[in-house]
Amino acid sequence: MIPGPIEFEPAVMRAMGAPTTSHVAGDFIETFGRSLEMMREVWLAPSGQPIILAGSGTLAMDAAGANLVEPGDKALVISTGYFGDRFAQLLERYGAKVTLLKAETGDVVDPGLIDRTLARDSYKLMTFTHVDTSTAVRVDPKPIGMLGKKHGVLTILDGVCSVAGEEIRQDEWGIDVVLTASQKAVGVPPGLALLMLSPKAIGAFRFRKTPVGSYYSDFTHWLPVMEAYENRKPSYFGTPAVNLIAALEVSLAGILREGMEHRFERHRNIGRMFRDGLKSLGLEMIPVREEVSANTLSAPYFPAGTDGPAFLSKVNEYGIILAGGLLPEIKSRYFRIGHMGSVNRADTAATLDAIRLAL
Amino acid sequence: MIPGPIEFEPAVMRAMGAPTTSHVAGDFIETFGRSLEMMREVWLAPSGQPIILAGSGTLAMDAAGANLVEPGDKALVISTGYFGDRFAQLLERYGAKVTLLKAETGDVVDPGLIDRTLARDSYKLMTFTHVDTSTAVRVDPKPIGMLGKKHGVLTILDGVCSVAGEEIRQDEWGIDVVLTASQKAVGVPPGLALLMLSPKAIGAFRFRKTPVGSYYSDFTHWLPVMEAYENRKPSYFGTPAVNLIAALEVSLAGILREGMEHRFERHRNIGRMFRDGLKSLGLEMIPVREEVSANTLSAPYFPAGTDGPAFLSKVNEYGIILAGGLLPEIKSRYFRIGHMGSVNRADTAATLDAIRLAL
Repeated sequence: MIPGPIEFEPAVMRAMGAPTTSHVAGDFIETFGRSLEMMREVWLAPSGQPIILAGSGTLAMDAAGANLVEPGDKALVISTGYFGDRFAQLLERYGAKVTLLKAETGDVVDPGLIDRTLARDSYKLMTFTHVDTSTAVRVDPKPIGMLGKKHGVLTILDGVCSVAGEEIRQDEWGIDVVLTASQKAVGVPPGLALLMLSPKAIGAFRFRKTPVGSYYSDFTHWLPVMEAYENRKPSYFGTPAVNLIAALEVSLAGILREGMEHRFERHRNIGRMFRDGLKSLGLEMIPVREEVSANTLSAPYFPAGTDGPAFLSKVNEYGIILAGGLLPEIKSRYFRIGHMGSVNRADTAATLDAIRLAL
Repeated sequence: MIPGPIEFEPAVMRAMGAPTTSHVAGDFIETFGRSLEMMREVWLAPSGQPIILAGSGTLAMDAAGANLVEPGDKALVISTGYFGDRFAQLLERYGAKVTLLKAETGDVVDPGLIDRTLARDSYKLMTFTHVDTSTAVRVDPKPIGMLGKKHGVLTILDGVCSVAGEEIRQDEWGIDVVLTASQKAVGVPPGLALLMLSPKAIGAFRFRKTPVGSYYSDFTHWLPVMEAYENRKPSYFGTPAVNLIAALEVSLAGILREGMEHRFERHRNIGRMFRDGLKSLGLEMIPVREEVSANTLSAPYFPAGTDGPAFLSKVNEYGIILAGGLLPEIKSRYFRIGHMGSVNRADTAATLDAIRLAL
């Protein structure tokens, strides 16, 4: 019950363990092509360009930053935790001048402040985190997407702990990049970085005047590969992670069988019921109110006087693995529980029970 | 029978398909730690620092280049094919001034020329490709390692198509970086970039004055993670590719059970016998003589007048998948057969038979 790697469907694991085909064999070309197509449906981004890379979620952030930033570009980073802060460091590495708007722990940044900040200077892009895995704070992407459009600023949404769990409508909300990693709500073991680029993001990439700072992340190499596979032709830059992509095809097909609307609703219900359960045990949450609480994970403080590591290992004795804190400022004071992907009410009930017993 | 992804052992595939544990769970920490330790034995690099990253073989090249090059550094690239040329582009991306020594197609660069070139200028590093997957040309790393020591130049060996197949003795031969990808002779599905750094390479990295050009590849983030897991402690920068690392543990253990000396010898024997077989069918090889021929793959020209794609699909009808050409200059004139990892004489005999029938 950690916030990724989550538990994966048996059919996904069978694809992981099935014989590896050639990356240019007909069956794999079909698998890669279909995975790219299904990503558009899961992201609700019919006009988007999907990209699948071998690497962790950090690579997805790296690729977004490296390909859209040129030295001297101004970037606004909206941080609701560890991963927001990471985006600031990452963009600076590629030469961006970063302005950081950091929320109070457990809260979000006021959209009015974002609006005023964007009005004061000419930013090229803005990053924000849908659900920061370190705090379980959920940002509403819709108004931020609108602010990006209003000010002509590219919007990059870190959806690592949200895509295929929290509601995302990339096209409708006008967000230029939505990125994630395979091991979260997408439901595939770790090792794939996944991105969806709007036509505007592609345009900004093609318009750059300097080479991309990272060789491996450079879309110049990868875009022709994605286009080729989607047109059912082999292509090569780096060898794709064949088994992980086969697992991705299976998982995306399962997600679409469930249906995005149902899936969003299921995550909302599970998230709300689980928070109610935690609160009924007297636990206080990092997110300061319901509207900024993630539905994919929860992050409660330990009750006063609790020995955190002892508590977590007690929960473990009841068959449940939970995660410790991640945000440096309060790392030892809280813990985290993932509830995304193919999680169900029995999982969350067993988790609540283990927490109650350990307390 | 393509030169990667190769066929993998059933036990490796079982590890791929086994339930994914948390990346900070005790059993996975042990798996990660043991994999790092076994890499040293496979690379014959007792003093080396192993690194395991989620990504393709290109990421391993990227990490070597990005971490060791600073803008303005002089780099000598010895190219025996497509992947040698790629290293030149990659190092230039990170600001290196590259001198390219390009072998005639099918041949290697004369070590005397390398020696004289190194003497004429002050190079920081030199890259070379053990087996270039595009040409099946094999370079002898030992004299080049010695030239690196003689001239005080860091040596980076692209071992993507060689590590755990061709003879490599990293410590003894004094090579500073030996890198590979999981899906070749290491015997694990694609998705892991693997590197081994000498103490001198680590020293050069720590001595750098500018930040690493790529955020994702930056060893500043990864070295503490590798050290932690080897000390059986959890750590985090990006989520490790849990199932691939579990598969790596199984494969490395199998490689060490076979023993490195036996494994080198087996690859030499299979390579020699397979080349003899191809020659007996009247095929001419890209490598111009035995001493520069890889033992992990072969690259014969099509006989004059052969319709390449028709030939390869005919071979396919006999149950064998082979790879087409990759070197742009002669791409349509040759094909490639991998024979590495758990390949045996029955595989190569069946392949020769299919080629003979298709011809």
